[in-house]
Amino acid sequence: MTDRLPLPVRDADATATITGILKQRFGDRAETGDSLRRQHAHTTTWIGNQPPDIVVWPETTAEVSEIVALAHHHRVPVIPFGTGTSLEGQVNAPAGGISIDFARMNKVLAVHPEDLDCVVQPGITRVALNTYLRDTGLFFPIDPGADASIGGMAATRASGTNAVRYGTMKDNILSLEAVLADGSVIRTGQRAKKSSAGYDLTRLMIGAEGTLGIITELTLRLHGIPEAISSAVCSFPTVEAACQAVIMTVQMGLPVARIELLDEVQVRACNGHSGLTLPETPLLLLEFHGTDAGVREQAETFGSIAEETGGTGFEWTTSPEERTRLWQARHDAYWAALTLRPGASPFVTDTCVPISRLADCMAATREKLTETGFIAPIVGHVGDGNFHTLLLVDMESVDEVEKAKAFVSWLSRLAIENDGTCTGEHGVGQGKKPYLDEELGGAVDAMVAIKAALDPRNILNPGKIL
Amino acid sequence: MTDRLPLPVRDADATATITGILKQRFGDRAETGDSLRRQHAHTTTWIGNQPPDIVVWPETTAEVSEIVALAHHHRVPVIPFGTGTSLEGQVNAPAGGISIDFARMNKVLAVHPEDLDCVVQPGITRVALNTYLRDTGLFFPIDPGADASIGGMAATRASGTNAVRYGTMKDNILSLEAVLADGSVIRTGQRAKKSSAGYDLTRLMIGAEGTLGIITELTLRLHGIPEAISSAVCSFPTVEAACQAVIMTVQMGLPVARIELLDEVQVRACNGHSGLTLPETPLLLLEFHGTDAGVREQAETFGSIAEETGGTGFEWTTSPEERTRLWQARHDAYWAALTLRPGASPFVTDTCVPISRLADCMAATREKLTETGFIAPIVGHVGDGNFHTLLLVDMESVDEVEKAKAFVSWLSRLAIENDGTCTGEHGVGQGKKPYLDEELGGAVDAMVAIKAALDPRNILNPGKIL
Repeated sequence: MTDRLPLPVRDADATATITGILKQRFGDRAETGDSLRRQHAHTTTWIGNQPPDIVVWPETTAEVSEIVALAHHHRVPVIPFGTGTSLEGQVNAPAGGISIDFARMNKVLAVHPEDLDCVVQPGITRVALNTYLRDTGLFFPIDPGADASIGGMAATRASGTNAVRYGTMKDNILSLEAVLADGSVIRTGQRAKKSSAGYDLTRLMIGAEGTLGIITELTLRLHGIPEAISSAVCSFPTVEAACQAVIMTVQMGLPVARIELLDEVQVRACNGHSGLTLPETPLLLLEFHGTDAGVREQAETFGSIAEETGGTGFEWTTSPEERTRLWQARHDAYWAALTLRPGASPFVTDTCVPISRLADCMAATREKLTETGFIAPIVGHVGDGNFHTLLLVDMESVDEVEKAKAFVSWLSRLAIENDGTCTGEHGVGQGKKPYLDEELGGAVDAMVAIKAALDPRNILNPGKIL
Repeated sequence: MTDRLPLPVRDADATATITGILKQRFGDRAETGDSLRRQHAHTTTWIGNQPPDIVVWPETTAEVSEIVALAHHHRVPVIPFGTGTSLEGQVNAPAGGISIDFARMNKVLAVHPEDLDCVVQPGITRVALNTYLRDTGLFFPIDPGADASIGGMAATRASGTNAVRYGTMKDNILSLEAVLADGSVIRTGQRAKKSSAGYDLTRLMIGAEGTLGIITELTLRLHGIPEAISSAVCSFPTVEAACQAVIMTVQMGLPVARIELLDEVQVRACNGHSGLTLPETPLLLLEFHGTDAGVREQAETFGSIAEETGGTGFEWTTSPEERTRLWQARHDAYWAALTLRPGASPFVTDTCVPISRLADCMAATREKLTETGFIAPIVGHVGDGNFHTLLLVDMESVDEVEKAKAFVSWLSRLAIENDGTCTGEHGVGQGKKPYLDEELGGAVDAMVAIKAALDPRNILNPGKIL
């Protein structure tokens, strides 16, 4: 597949010039060591590692602006880097260039408890932010599996298990500061909770993976830590039955905070890894946030739904220790999955479909997996219709890797045919580029026009999305 | 103030050609009568009426595409028209052109109850949609005052009293179909509840007021009609005390569905108009959605907050008749306000600030209004920090109109200085263009670049926003 926009031509002279200038300007905050550069390229799945030429650690927006203006002048790519946990090659440098590592821009700049918002730099991770916020009684709800940086989460429009109640990154950012391709700095909005003042550049930057601008500051919406939390688990005879329970839950407007599905392969993995004794059938795990009375009522209502849809072994609790025990399987899911085939590497898919199509899509996926012979648990943020398969692949086997890629293609198309997306929360990066035209058709031309208008030299994270 | 993008030059030949072609092609679905053209331009406030050259009523997306392609070829503006209830001149035709009236594209194309979504044409109004949906147990929550069209509400990023719980139009649209400047048709996303597939063109089109593309179909998120609703009212000695109650309510995470403030002038108007006997001090009206037990608990919790913040006359109920009675003042607010000065026309402002600034901004606003001498009630969607003043202006008095305009400028700047926006939910149109640069600075340049890339001939609703 060819890129819609040509990559900047690698120019050894420009690279040497830029590297020299940055080393002089930033001292030990600019590095060109081999292994360090490789750590700043893609490391998390099958996509090859394409290291940048230099890594720089700015400390202020002005420094980011300076770096980008320099890159613009010399037509050298800039690639923003948070924690490197993206899954689709977002931090690769296919045409070399400058990796901007935000590790030193990781401060909380302001917390406004009365307004339920805070202002942060992009390098802070979600765990660090929530630790910082703990005493305020507030929290930031978006929780992708990894302890990703907030800037990276915004750039990939991340979400996770809480999205069914709290939305995704697009719903929890009030405004952004970003450095544009020429080094100019913009602010996309004010701190007001809503606005109809012009084009929604906030949402345009969220999910643009640094290709339209480099995020340097974020104003986030916060939520009150709930007075009470209840957790529940329930086993189901089939994925279909579990999905039916999810549909009823969502349709009744039960304000579930989390509703996660583990399929039978995943449950078996968790039993083995964590010494659990769950029935090896599909499992739903739920969490409710609210008042004491509210979360009790919600858990009990879900109990009735579970009964009606064939659930067994329904349990719920509000005690923190018991909640941890009930959710143990979910917390360990990733590591448990890896133990199913030691030495293999995970290929993670990320399809999202309308909930009415979820049961059929998951059944077809399981059938296809059986046909391919891969060991591959399925875990789903099912309240949103989003599910991940985790294929365990021997990366030394060319045949297996090809078969895994073919499966990703098949599954992406299955989602698209079912009015869904090939990427619910992991972004496009390099890995999902082949499916974007199929999913969005002519809309991709409009994206190309916007990219060309805002970054005519294609220096902002080139080779991603388009 | 000059436009950032030059308006298309009016060309009598092109207009005559276009008019001839459209009349031949659309027969009695294309009209050029004077009064009809004037009805399709701005009619709702002080902004002058700038009629289009012709009004056309398409029935399909293909017809819209045909009209826009023709307009593109002849470099003639197209202006989408819903119900004409926008407040900032969005439907005016400063360079003439074609008004596309969506009255005949008002169908519900699909309802997917399991997925809580539906697909509609842009011309359907919110009341018609909710009437259609009633038997499904679902509803679409966005409720600007007027019975606006869903397409127009999307185009202006509308919200209203429910936004504190359900968000604005940007939060309740899954995807859009739109006709671009050259007549091509795009779809911005699938029906999946979330996606990270490329740039968020859905959110880019929402609030763009038809300047980037003409919306021809919308996939909307629906919500379950709540099992129970409770309403509450409470009077407060001052706006500050009422705002303090709002802040505590929001901070406690009480999931209030509506929380509206009427200031003392508005309450007085309502007493006079609707024969009520409310204390003539600031009044909060609330609504809670949930289970029977939940809405009872929430109303009572608010009762405690009200007591703590100096509220008096707290009342709450779940009975539909009693709810209507409690909310009477709010339902009649607009008409009650107009009776304060018969014959005068309303100038409506729409500032939105962080909640922590709300009390100060409202107090400063009341002081300024006293200074100007205008009769002007204030009504606020205070859970979002959004408030409207309704200035009653004698439009025959040049002096009054100038004074009113000066007040709008003053208030817009007050909001901007307080980290807020000059337009919370009414859009920019023509009326708020002078403040966009002050509010968003260099971000406006990025908007201009996007507009120029997607509509190089500036035919899509020219002279609006930028």
